[in-house]
Amino acid sequence: MRPRQTFLRLPGREIMSSTLFTHALVLTSDPGRPVIEDGAVVVDETMIAAVGSTSELRGTTVDRIIDLDGDILMPGFVNTHTHLAGTITRGLVEDVTTGEYLERIWPIEALGIANGWFGAGVRVAMVEHLLAGITTANDMFFDPSSTMKNAVEMGFRLLAGTVYLDFPGPDGLDPAARMDELGVLLDEYRGHPLVQVTVAPHGGYTVGPDHLESIWRRALADDLIFHIHAAESKEEDATIREIYGRRPVEHLGAVGVLGERTVLAHAIRLDDDDLDLVADTGAAVAHCPISNLKTVSGICRVDEMLKRGIRVGLGTDGGTASNDYDMFSVMRAAATLGKFVTQRPERFTARELVAMATIGGAEVLGIADRVGTLTEGKQADLISVDTSAPHNVPMYDPFTTLVYQAGRSDVRLTMVRGEILMEDRRLTRVDVGGVVSEAMAAGREIGRAIGG
Amino acid sequence: MRPRQTFLRLPGREIMSSTLFTHALVLTSDPGRPVIEDGAVVVDETMIAAVGSTSELRGTTVDRIIDLDGDILMPGFVNTHTHLAGTITRGLVEDVTTGEYLERIWPIEALGIANGWFGAGVRVAMVEHLLAGITTANDMFFDPSSTMKNAVEMGFRLLAGTVYLDFPGPDGLDPAARMDELGVLLDEYRGHPLVQVTVAPHGGYTVGPDHLESIWRRALADDLIFHIHAAESKEEDATIREIYGRRPVEHLGAVGVLGERTVLAHAIRLDDDDLDLVADTGAAVAHCPISNLKTVSGICRVDEMLKRGIRVGLGTDGGTASNDYDMFSVMRAAATLGKFVTQRPERFTARELVAMATIGGAEVLGIADRVGTLTEGKQADLISVDTSAPHNVPMYDPFTTLVYQAGRSDVRLTMVRGEILMEDRRLTRVDVGGVVSEAMAAGREIGRAIGG
Repeated sequence: MRPRQTFLRLPGREIMSSTLFTHALVLTSDPGRPVIEDGAVVVDETMIAAVGSTSELRGTTVDRIIDLDGDILMPGFVNTHTHLAGTITRGLVEDVTTGEYLERIWPIEALGIANGWFGAGVRVAMVEHLLAGITTANDMFFDPSSTMKNAVEMGFRLLAGTVYLDFPGPDGLDPAARMDELGVLLDEYRGHPLVQVTVAPHGGYTVGPDHLESIWRRALADDLIFHIHAAESKEEDATIREIYGRRPVEHLGAVGVLGERTVLAHAIRLDDDDLDLVADTGAAVAHCPISNLKTVSGICRVDEMLKRGIRVGLGTDGGTASNDYDMFSVMRAAATLGKFVTQRPERFTARELVAMATIGGAEVLGIADRVGTLTEGKQADLISVDTSAPHNVPMYDPFTTLVYQAGRSDVRLTMVRGEILMEDRRLTRVDVGGVVSEAMAAGREIGRAIGG
Repeated sequence: MRPRQTFLRLPGREIMSSTLFTHALVLTSDPGRPVIEDGAVVVDETMIAAVGSTSELRGTTVDRIIDLDGDILMPGFVNTHTHLAGTITRGLVEDVTTGEYLERIWPIEALGIANGWFGAGVRVAMVEHLLAGITTANDMFFDPSSTMKNAVEMGFRLLAGTVYLDFPGPDGLDPAARMDELGVLLDEYRGHPLVQVTVAPHGGYTVGPDHLESIWRRALADDLIFHIHAAESKEEDATIREIYGRRPVEHLGAVGVLGERTVLAHAIRLDDDDLDLVADTGAAVAHCPISNLKTVSGICRVDEMLKRGIRVGLGTDGGTASNDYDMFSVMRAAATLGKFVTQRPERFTARELVAMATIGGAEVLGIADRVGTLTEGKQADLISVDTSAPHNVPMYDPFTTLVYQAGRSDVRLTMVRGEILMEDRRLTRVDVGGVVSEAMAAGREIGRAIGG
């Protein structure tokens, strides 16, 4: 299958260099001024130039004024852990034991790389992110170079990097080749405004201590986020205990790869000592509650993490684990589970969840200086959410509406770095029909290849 | 506030007396023929006249042919437990302890009845149900007569009835007046094609044994569903143990109100003896997983129920407990929680969840002879679901797509009793803008009344 050309500009659409949003219910995720009724935001080129009330800002000279007529205007969601390319095999192997899952999915992944199916997965996943108001994703998958190219073409904000394993992956690369891959990525994307290179060792049970340490040194040298699966599954826990006599997070601490640049995906199986260790080292957590239930892995101890000051963001995980990319669902799952686990309905407030899905994620990824709140001087990554659908009325508190009622289809506008990428459910840069057709075609090929 | 006239027929729209749906992926929820690729369904007046392949049925003479072009065609969802009117106060009291919640919500409910706010809640909830593909709801709220009138005007299938308490409710009715209310409802709706009268005693801790028994006798005499909250909250559990020295479900069994007509809403706090009792008596369960987590009540032992042959359907609960009416979210929550609790990812398959949300619910409510599957001779309560959105592709298994990716906004058509009530996201009988405005206005009044 040859990928179609799916990137275009719709006829007649121009990038506006400055935009004034008016009459919005502005939820800034900025604790200094969290809610502005009848609010306004000025975007100048790629940046947020001003945040205030409509009456304060209405005189600003801009290229375009967008009257939001009471819609919510807020920071875009930050997805702290995902595997975009795997979207192309989502739903293929479901409702089976973990053993059967791995047995069936690995050969498919190798086939996918050999046949170039994963590009279609990346594109449909990014389109889905933009339609759902997710403006940043922290990805972990093979062939990051291709994923980065797609992000640049889509205008999407991406953290991605080399996925390390001790053994050759489905892409055939060995550890040495991966260090070369990282060098190439760094050469290409150092200082890039949308794409940030990370290192993404798969996990403490698939990457040995010496290898982890060398990756960590590289992360330090090049100032990179160190993104790793940690304390997710029973199998991982058992393996690390057996080989190293330690719990998974304890092991990462002993190897010396916990620090402020560490993003622990899942982080479920932590005892109190592990929690203290994460807090002491300043590592952060990507909390993926829907994935964790569906894969029967466990429930992250988020309340204890927050009490210790650990940074926690939200993640969808990849399409093979929890299928779709919908931060509204993830916020709701995190809130309801958090309340239930603590047995305290007053914990995990809707406001806290919206913060976790925006600035919380940005803090986890170390990009809170640039995104995550609507604040003057930050990048203009923002979304508007229509609250007039029947499921959203009446609205007594916008945070509650966002977490418990609104859904991805209510997102009306998605802007990344000052550019409107989605407006009125239509993407401006991408031919969605083409991306969907390409994904469907790849799906048919995959079905045939595995005899489905 | 005076309710607006919100029921109309859109100009030029006629009710078709017969319809042929073609080129659908038909998911029947009927175990005899669960999936029909390139399938077709003939609807004649209010009934399903034929189910088969497009090639088998394409010659049928009908008033209208709807080519679904690959969309899923399936039974409408059945919501086995809800409180529609309470929608008008959803989101008003959130993120607080149970004690504070009750203290704040009860005076608002009394105000709501006095001021006529709840009608707006019923209407916006029913609109939301129809837009989300839910074609039947089992309601429990005061003033059922008004709710029933709304259902008839909307064309929505409703089970509702008198809500019993030992004390006067926020509507001022005492137990004797409620028995009169039930008589009036029965006179009006006996044999009605859309509205079915039930009895709905609030719970074993708010309705004493003698009162429960007299309601049960009435249910037997008039062949009514007996819809009751059971074993939901810690407070209920403690109260019933203290007064009667029994667990909540054990108590209902001792009073003699468990049987095939009993619908137990929530049914969380059941020990093995309780499970056996429910199975032996043939009572059914309305499983509301999102509500149960959010209210920190617990997790229903669905796996053990299914193993004992207990009928289990899905419910959203009401807007004050879990805010919206989205069976896609409920299916996903029930599936992921079920997998997690059993620690078996192969349990709670997507196919089982779709069955639970359709025919399972119909069986719980005792209406499986009429709805819940696409089967010749049943009422034509059905929906179509578009699977071409980016979040739904590729699709390897339609049940997985429905449970883990699709959402209410993918529902393209909702038909109840042979009448298309929603098509292309527009309701045919109802002015949605009017219903939304009415709910917003009521919300503003409520906010002012409580000083918000």
